[in-house]
Amino acid sequence: MPAYKAPLKDMQFVLHDVFNAGEQWANNPLFEDCTTDLADTLLDESAKICENLIAPLNRPGDEQGVRLENGQVYTPDGFKDAFKTYAESGWVGLGGNAEYDGQGMPKMLTCLAEEMLHSCGASFCLYSILTSGAALALDAHGSEALKKTYLPKMYSGEWTGAMALTEAHAGTDLGMIRTKAEDNGDGSYKVTGTKIFITGGDHDLTDNIIHLVLAKLPDAPPGPKGISLFLVPKHKVNADGSIGEFNNVSCGSLEEKMGIHASATCVMNYDGAEGFLVGELNRGLNAMFTMMNYERLSVGIQGLGASQLSYQGAVEYAKDRVQSRAPGSKKVGAADPIIDHGDVRRMLMTVKALVEGGRAFSVYCGMQLDKAKAGDENAEKLVALLTPVCKAFMTDKGFDACVIGQQVLGGHGYIREWGMEQQVRDTRIAQIYEGTNGIQAMDLLGRKVVASRGALLTAYLAEINAYLETISDNVHLMPFTEGLKFAANTTEQVTKAIFGRLQDDPHLVGTAANDYLHMIGYLSFTYMWTKMAEVSISQTDDAFHDGKIKTGLFYVQRLLPQMSALATAIVQGSEATMALDVAQF
Amino acid sequence: MPAYKAPLKDMQFVLHDVFNAGEQWANNPLFEDCTTDLADTLLDESAKICENLIAPLNRPGDEQGVRLENGQVYTPDGFKDAFKTYAESGWVGLGGNAEYDGQGMPKMLTCLAEEMLHSCGASFCLYSILTSGAALALDAHGSEALKKTYLPKMYSGEWTGAMALTEAHAGTDLGMIRTKAEDNGDGSYKVTGTKIFITGGDHDLTDNIIHLVLAKLPDAPPGPKGISLFLVPKHKVNADGSIGEFNNVSCGSLEEKMGIHASATCVMNYDGAEGFLVGELNRGLNAMFTMMNYERLSVGIQGLGASQLSYQGAVEYAKDRVQSRAPGSKKVGAADPIIDHGDVRRMLMTVKALVEGGRAFSVYCGMQLDKAKAGDENAEKLVALLTPVCKAFMTDKGFDACVIGQQVLGGHGYIREWGMEQQVRDTRIAQIYEGTNGIQAMDLLGRKVVASRGALLTAYLAEINAYLETISDNVHLMPFTEGLKFAANTTEQVTKAIFGRLQDDPHLVGTAANDYLHMIGYLSFTYMWTKMAEVSISQTDDAFHDGKIKTGLFYVQRLLPQMSALATAIVQGSEATMALDVAQF
Repeated sequence: MPAYKAPLKDMQFVLHDVFNAGEQWANNPLFEDCTTDLADTLLDESAKICENLIAPLNRPGDEQGVRLENGQVYTPDGFKDAFKTYAESGWVGLGGNAEYDGQGMPKMLTCLAEEMLHSCGASFCLYSILTSGAALALDAHGSEALKKTYLPKMYSGEWTGAMALTEAHAGTDLGMIRTKAEDNGDGSYKVTGTKIFITGGDHDLTDNIIHLVLAKLPDAPPGPKGISLFLVPKHKVNADGSIGEFNNVSCGSLEEKMGIHASATCVMNYDGAEGFLVGELNRGLNAMFTMMNYERLSVGIQGLGASQLSYQGAVEYAKDRVQSRAPGSKKVGAADPIIDHGDVRRMLMTVKALVEGGRAFSVYCGMQLDKAKAGDENAEKLVALLTPVCKAFMTDKGFDACVIGQQVLGGHGYIREWGMEQQVRDTRIAQIYEGTNGIQAMDLLGRKVVASRGALLTAYLAEINAYLETISDNVHLMPFTEGLKFAANTTEQVTKAIFGRLQDDPHLVGTAANDYLHMIGYLSFTYMWTKMAEVSISQTDDAFHDGKIKTGLFYVQRLLPQMSALATAIVQGSEATMALDVAQF
Repeated sequence: MPAYKAPLKDMQFVLHDVFNAGEQWANNPLFEDCTTDLADTLLDESAKICENLIAPLNRPGDEQGVRLENGQVYTPDGFKDAFKTYAESGWVGLGGNAEYDGQGMPKMLTCLAEEMLHSCGASFCLYSILTSGAALALDAHGSEALKKTYLPKMYSGEWTGAMALTEAHAGTDLGMIRTKAEDNGDGSYKVTGTKIFITGGDHDLTDNIIHLVLAKLPDAPPGPKGISLFLVPKHKVNADGSIGEFNNVSCGSLEEKMGIHASATCVMNYDGAEGFLVGELNRGLNAMFTMMNYERLSVGIQGLGASQLSYQGAVEYAKDRVQSRAPGSKKVGAADPIIDHGDVRRMLMTVKALVEGGRAFSVYCGMQLDKAKAGDENAEKLVALLTPVCKAFMTDKGFDACVIGQQVLGGHGYIREWGMEQQVRDTRIAQIYEGTNGIQAMDLLGRKVVASRGALLTAYLAEINAYLETISDNVHLMPFTEGLKFAANTTEQVTKAIFGRLQDDPHLVGTAANDYLHMIGYLSFTYMWTKMAEVSISQTDDAFHDGKIKTGLFYVQRLLPQMSALATAIVQGSEATMALDVAQF
């Protein structure tokens, strides 16, 4: 496993220079206490705990994995102590509601802390972000009593959270769930059913685990409109906040997976467990979706964090490993470092361009979430539009980046010893969970672009076009402005073409969704690279900023051309994709 | 693990209908005994042994893996018996030289048998194809005495083969190897050194293992021109052909890998082992390259075989799994099978188009190898040009196909139980070994296209353009002919642009190689799909041929557009890719 070193300079560049976080916070009533100094201090502290405490657990955790013994799940050696230290330092509640002892920090800062945590291993990170996510839903929809009892303990990391949605026959289609909740008549419900793929459903990190469970009342309407959300703790909580008796919430088995071996993926049984309604009856999906925008951004950041570590490992190896002579070699030593070879450069530059573009995009999306939280309607539109892009594009490109990073090491990338293959296995899940990337794509094109009749996309393109106006006379930025214009125009044309054919082609949205999402992804990364280039262009005598410009140029010249291919494919319509009878497969 | 069912009808379609194998063989003096009836019988038998004997070992083999105990490597339960049965039926020597008891079958047939074997698990397959590969090098370069002693036992699978090239510090750059060979003065050499990543270097399947080892004599010239090839058996062989004393060839350790867990990847120690020169002194690389064209095609077929199995698993799941309503749903049952959803169709069609295009391309390359073996100079050119494409494009697309197949299953694709994730882990190595795909790309663009001053590419394009002439008046084929013209023209233009800039841009080949190889891959698959469409177009009332046309249309409309993106990226030159100082990474 490559040693992780948090890319603090790159993070501060994005936060301060590109997005001017200090000014953002000064103008946002929710975050006016957050200063750039505080942000930098937090990033430093986050880097320390991630590099020194959490990163060293990544590979041993993968090797040892979780285990189920006598009905109790155990995490790998070192996880429990590390989680305690991590939680006690306040990191679980970093973005939590300050009224209930959260730290109340803005998302554009917490997403950088999350990136560091994800670089140090998705498995450890999941115990934390699932807790933040469950707390978020509880904070938005729970009763005052529930919030008072549970939120402080969740923000402090004394208890963790878990989200229990999926059942064996119901994944994407939650309307079909069978878990039932019966009214006990005393303000509580009896929850009975089996859920699968429950991340952190059981473990030994904390004394209690707070499950948010989707279930149906016996008389609920069929389908998604009959789903309610219940808080179901592993152990009941006494009136004084202490832990009471076992609540019949148990792990039936652990899934054997491709990766994230240190994350407990549980089959969970709720055997008449006591639960409490969160939000309104039959509005459970609504309550869950509150947290979705945050969780989906977090999963996107998983792709980013993993590829940052993969990048570091690949660069280190490429500088060190000597093989063959490169063109223009100075013929020092037996052979040249492979970083001098063109194809290795292509790989490293691809990963670098994706990682740095992704980091800027994640902070940009965090910024929109912060603005939306304060009531900015335009930001709300952007959050709605870009959340699926953030989740799916950043995990697809994050996975690709991990595969490319592994490739740089050749055979050494395939063996476990170097840790590069673990990034590939661990990151693969990010394309699947929290709504598969296909579901994200349909969410983007169907529910966001089409259902808003283009309004959400128009808001985004208007921002980009307005931005292009402000930089139009900067000749040094030309390759970027040209690239961004091309990307914006292509998006507009393709979207128009889709709207023109919607009526006649009912399968158009489904068959075009994936390519469309990738198109918006490339557009977004072009926007980010243009912004990064803009703030760097006057400082090319400084190696850091010079590197930004050159990496941005690589992105625009070598990766952005993908957009044409996507556009051409999309406008073909659905006919060829849907042409076969099922029997012809 | 999805149950494997050999796609015999698809294979026969390619062999007989698309490439007219019977006529090929009748006109090739090396294969005139091979009839279509014999071929079909062999395919049937191969399917049986693969489906019933080998496929069931795939997942247990992955779970159990190989182990090293007291210096001896053991394969997973069942491998030894299965290998014995497989070998006794003559499959190891299927393409072997008949003079030494091989079966002498043409490559265009054996590559289909190899595909089946790869679908049933790369690990098992490797023990067989490494043996065929070693036998091939021995047959081409060994002395009559060596061939008489070793080839019959290798073709019969009584002994297996291993290729020992890589050392810890020398992978791509074999000129740096340190393993030494000292002349014993009796026709034998004393071989001493350590090799890593040796597939099948030790195991318990057979009583002897025949290593082909690259080593240097003490007075050899430096670099690649000082490398010789030696045959080094694990156990010495007595004059009567029986097994003699241990030859100090031992496995120091096994690598822990991402996948192919049932394949023994060994660190091998040769401690003054007795070896025999194969070919001329200092011409070892040349002897190794004899087998490269065959082995690289086989590795390409690994990508194909794995994606065929992944396709079957994905289709089965997609027909079975019901979630949500699709557009135009007949509203039967609680939800529609996910195969009715546009994005799932996109995934299945992508895999199907890649698998079937890849199968045709592998048989096409096999056909060129068969022609070249009989002295056809044009075929030799095509083999040289297309071998790296076959290896790299088919493993890159094979890996992508396995990832997409896994994605169809959502969370069930990520857990081990369904076997889809194993395809991803196992196939990943195919992009790395037998020369990484980056090395293949540089071989294609540097050593094949540029070094031949375009002659090899011209031969290929001439064949394609001549073919286009023959179908130019078939209006029904228009989308295919248009696609193929576009692909051929794009290739020609991009190649011209590269030649125009070679002098001024020493890094152009290295930085463009990967995209260039993919471009030739898309061109080749378009050629294959056009040929498949041509023989299907008059039979659209038959579901099988109708399916071919429609899948081909999907390929041309939705996948081929990638070529424009690659072309645009390539013509940007190397500047942005090479712009950073090493310290800026």
